Amino acid sequence: MHIDLNRHSGITLTEQIRTAVADRIQSGLLQEGEKLPSVRNLSKLLDVSLMTVFHAYELLEQEGLIDRIQGKGSFILGKSTRFKNRPNQKEAEKPSMDWQNTVADYLPRAQYWRMMQSPLVDVAKLSMAALHSSLIPTEWITKQFFLHAQLDHSLLTEYGPVQGDSKLRDAVLPYFREKNIVAGPNEIMILNGSQQGIDLVASTFVGPGDVVVLEEPAYPCTIDVLRRRGATIFTIPIDEEGMQVDHLAALCDTRPPKLIYTNPTFQNPTGTVMSARRRAQLLELAQSYNAIILEDDATSDLYFGSAPPPPAIKSMDRHGHVIYLKGISKFISPGCRIGFLIADGTFMTRLVSSKGISDLGSPLITQKAILPFFTSNQLQKHLPVLREKLKERRNLVLQILNRMAPKGVRWTKPDGGLNIWMTLPHAMNADDLHTFALQEGISFLPGHVCFPAQQQYHHLRLSFSYLDIHTLESSLITLCRLLQGFTQSDRHSERIMHI
Amino acid sequence: MHIDLNRHSGITLTEQIRTAVADRIQSGLLQEGEKLPSVRNLSKLLDVSLMTVFHAYELLEQEGLIDRIQGKGSFILGKSTRFKNRPNQKEAEKPSMDWQNTVADYLPRAQYWRMMQSPLVDVAKLSMAALHSSLIPTEWITKQFFLHAQLDHSLLTEYGPVQGDSKLRDAVLPYFREKNIVAGPNEIMILNGSQQGIDLVASTFVGPGDVVVLEEPAYPCTIDVLRRRGATIFTIPIDEEGMQVDHLAALCDTRPPKLIYTNPTFQNPTGTVMSARRRAQLLELAQSYNAIILEDDATSDLYFGSAPPPPAIKSMDRHGHVIYLKGISKFISPGCRIGFLIADGTFMTRLVSSKGISDLGSPLITQKAILPFFTSNQLQKHLPVLREKLKERRNLVLQILNRMAPKGVRWTKPDGGLNIWMTLPHAMNADDLHTFALQEGISFLPGHVCFPAQQQYHHLRLSFSYLDIHTLESSLITLCRLLQGFTQSDRHSERIMHI
Repeated sequence: MHIDLNRHSGITLTEQIRTAVADRIQSGLLQEGEKLPSVRNLSKLLDVSLMTVFHAYELLEQEGLIDRIQGKGSFILGKSTRFKNRPNQKEAEKPSMDWQNTVADYLPRAQYWRMMQSPLVDVAKLSMAALHSSLIPTEWITKQFFLHAQLDHSLLTEYGPVQGDSKLRDAVLPYFREKNIVAGPNEIMILNGSQQGIDLVASTFVGPGDVVVLEEPAYPCTIDVLRRRGATIFTIPIDEEGMQVDHLAALCDTRPPKLIYTNPTFQNPTGTVMSARRRAQLLELAQSYNAIILEDDATSDLYFGSAPPPPAIKSMDRHGHVIYLKGISKFISPGCRIGFLIADGTFMTRLVSSKGISDLGSPLITQKAILPFFTSNQLQKHLPVLREKLKERRNLVLQILNRMAPKGVRWTKPDGGLNIWMTLPHAMNADDLHTFALQEGISFLPGHVCFPAQQQYHHLRLSFSYLDIHTLESSLITLCRLLQGFTQSDRHSERIMHI
Repeated sequence: MHIDLNRHSGITLTEQIRTAVADRIQSGLLQEGEKLPSVRNLSKLLDVSLMTVFHAYELLEQEGLIDRIQGKGSFILGKSTRFKNRPNQKEAEKPSMDWQNTVADYLPRAQYWRMMQSPLVDVAKLSMAALHSSLIPTEWITKQFFLHAQLDHSLLTEYGPVQGDSKLRDAVLPYFREKNIVAGPNEIMILNGSQQGIDLVASTFVGPGDVVVLEEPAYPCTIDVLRRRGATIFTIPIDEEGMQVDHLAALCDTRPPKLIYTNPTFQNPTGTVMSARRRAQLLELAQSYNAIILEDDATSDLYFGSAPPPPAIKSMDRHGHVIYLKGISKFISPGCRIGFLIADGTFMTRLVSSKGISDLGSPLITQKAILPFFTSNQLQKHLPVLREKLKERRNLVLQILNRMAPKGVRWTKPDGGLNIWMTLPHAMNADDLHTFALQEGISFLPGHVCFPAQQQYHHLRLSFSYLDIHTLESSLITLCRLLQGFTQSDRHSERIMHI
């Protein structure tokens, strides 16, 4: 078990070990019944005292994640009933592959993947932050693509340029110019979805012990990426104006970050919008401390008010501090896996080079498929309709929650995006609620995956974009009924992990 | 400048520093005129003696890569005339972005990307190991895809499963079974090209200082990936039976590798085939030393003899040691960026999880585009024709070389694949030849990028698959004329880097 310890992070070694092991368990990378290294062995391996490891294991036992058996060792406990239906991979494995368990990996956390892999057949996925098929002009895209493909066969026969198809890079310039982001085609790179951009920036600029700042709560898959790089992660809480930049300023004095990841507009998972004032402050901080801002903008096009949200931080960036990501999954198509990265100066040179190493460039076929969307007026026609339909969905959800959600449950009222963030009373555990919800055929995203270290278990994310409108309505009503029962019964007290 | 030093690798620190700086220069990540850190600063930063850095800089100066100016410092020299035509990026940059140079990255080498980025417009690319459009049934693929897309709109509206579309995973099983690779759909993962597989295996299992073994020469982009992970790389030379496994056995005693990367069939760049005997020995070694074999099989379908090459190492693997990669770029389409990874046990769990972190899964659209190829008899019809046409091309190239190549020049006679590896007399530099070739409108892959450390400059790779047959012929003839002049003149002695 490879654990990156940072002795200068201000986070205790006990806590770092606890987090590393807990994350592997939560991600299913350590499975029920597996034995942990002995306290003695792990303390030797990590060059820390016996007590440091002992306390970490003690904390893990208190959390119900492991079982310490006198004279036998420490064993992983089953997480809860919710994964009981998964096929037991250990049984299916040939025992002769046991040597693989001696191969250490650099993969401490994969919680988002775990969620995506859950066997959610016939389940109404309030967990899925994607668009329902009726919200995507699939037929139009497919037809345009076919017409194009007949004229241009190079989409199959050529490796595309690593930085991306030049026609597509040219075609999206006006779209970004409307956002006040002035970039030439050389400042744009095409990605396999914006997730790849997060991975590339981390692989290129973040290494073991480098200080990185996230919002709290944060988009979980970014946490996974940064943990894989061994980063030291600090979090800054969010309020209704977004990341609390004054807290960040205080942190910068003692732990200047190399990278600040933010999702300023309709933040995933909370739906909050960072104010223009804070955006400017954040950029100023980055300039003062020579930090990189990774601005992940998936949903700024999906605003429900009459005016768009404040301009992207990238639009104010004059010195190349901001690496800007724009995925199209949330407003055109997740199936194409296309994202755009905008960066300046040597950052772009380094990132393109890193992309070449990672995959030799994105498929041409998907880039060509999306091209007509930007070369026609299709996007201008599509976006207002999409906004209106999403707004209706949000209103429907808020109406149901207002009417039916029990006392003590709170939720955000986002002015755009796809998600609502719900907070239960502190003593309640959204994981347990999820177990009951799955039994009723409903899934949501348990909020604890959005916290990099001290996970909070009383939040959940509800996406209102993916289900057909009737299923959305009925599953929300069912969820509210479950919530009512949950708050009244003491079932949730069976497994309270954080109070 | 971040440099991973391994104090237990048996490679001197001086050599490690030299390689790290040389790679950054060769990759264009350090540009002409840039100043290196002072000897004092770098020795402090890396915690090594002044003399260690001094000697490293001395070696770099002897190689003509840097210029040490008394009292001023050490500066990067221009590589050669061959990149003189590239736009000077420094001039185009705003000076106010200079702070970016203080941001250390984890990107020591990107030589393959550098080659792919060269401004090769109107150049006959003997450098490109891809198929000419006449060798790919593009029209058939496009038409099938369109028919399919009309029936199934999910390809745009859904995130595909992280492990890959289940229909495609099912569809390729018979193809692999014919290679004696028996795998279920759970043992197969779909990638954005096999390059992504190399990156995923490295990100998941290889970290700073981990010992990795490559063939020498090796596929350059694997070197780039492993260097980005900070691996300690050892190389094992190739002879006509492939990797010299007895050399590897000797190495294993002192430096047991965590990962062995091999390209056993029609190796890139040399075209050699590892014998069945050595394949078995290699697997045995991996079993003895608990090592992972990463078997990259891009071209085993492209054999020119009557019988296929020896079965893949994966076909003999009973204990999950081999992670097998099969890209389709070399025999169906590079534009789709599709590859398959086959692995067993927890290796697959960990790699799928890593893929989820990297990009949330591959595009569905490209997976659906390739599906009809495997569900029909198209592949069985396509491959024999492709083999025949490639064989004709190889024969043509060998005929021209036999007739025209000057004395002292040697080349491989591959029985399959896309490449010929040419070796010049030791005193000649293929980089210089490339400069002259570019002036004549011809490119090839200078061989030095295929060496991870002590680069050899007297080799080159010629790909015979990408050009139309007439351009292939004429450019080979021109190249031979150049070679004749080159061996007679002393032009090449202007810049001899290794003798």
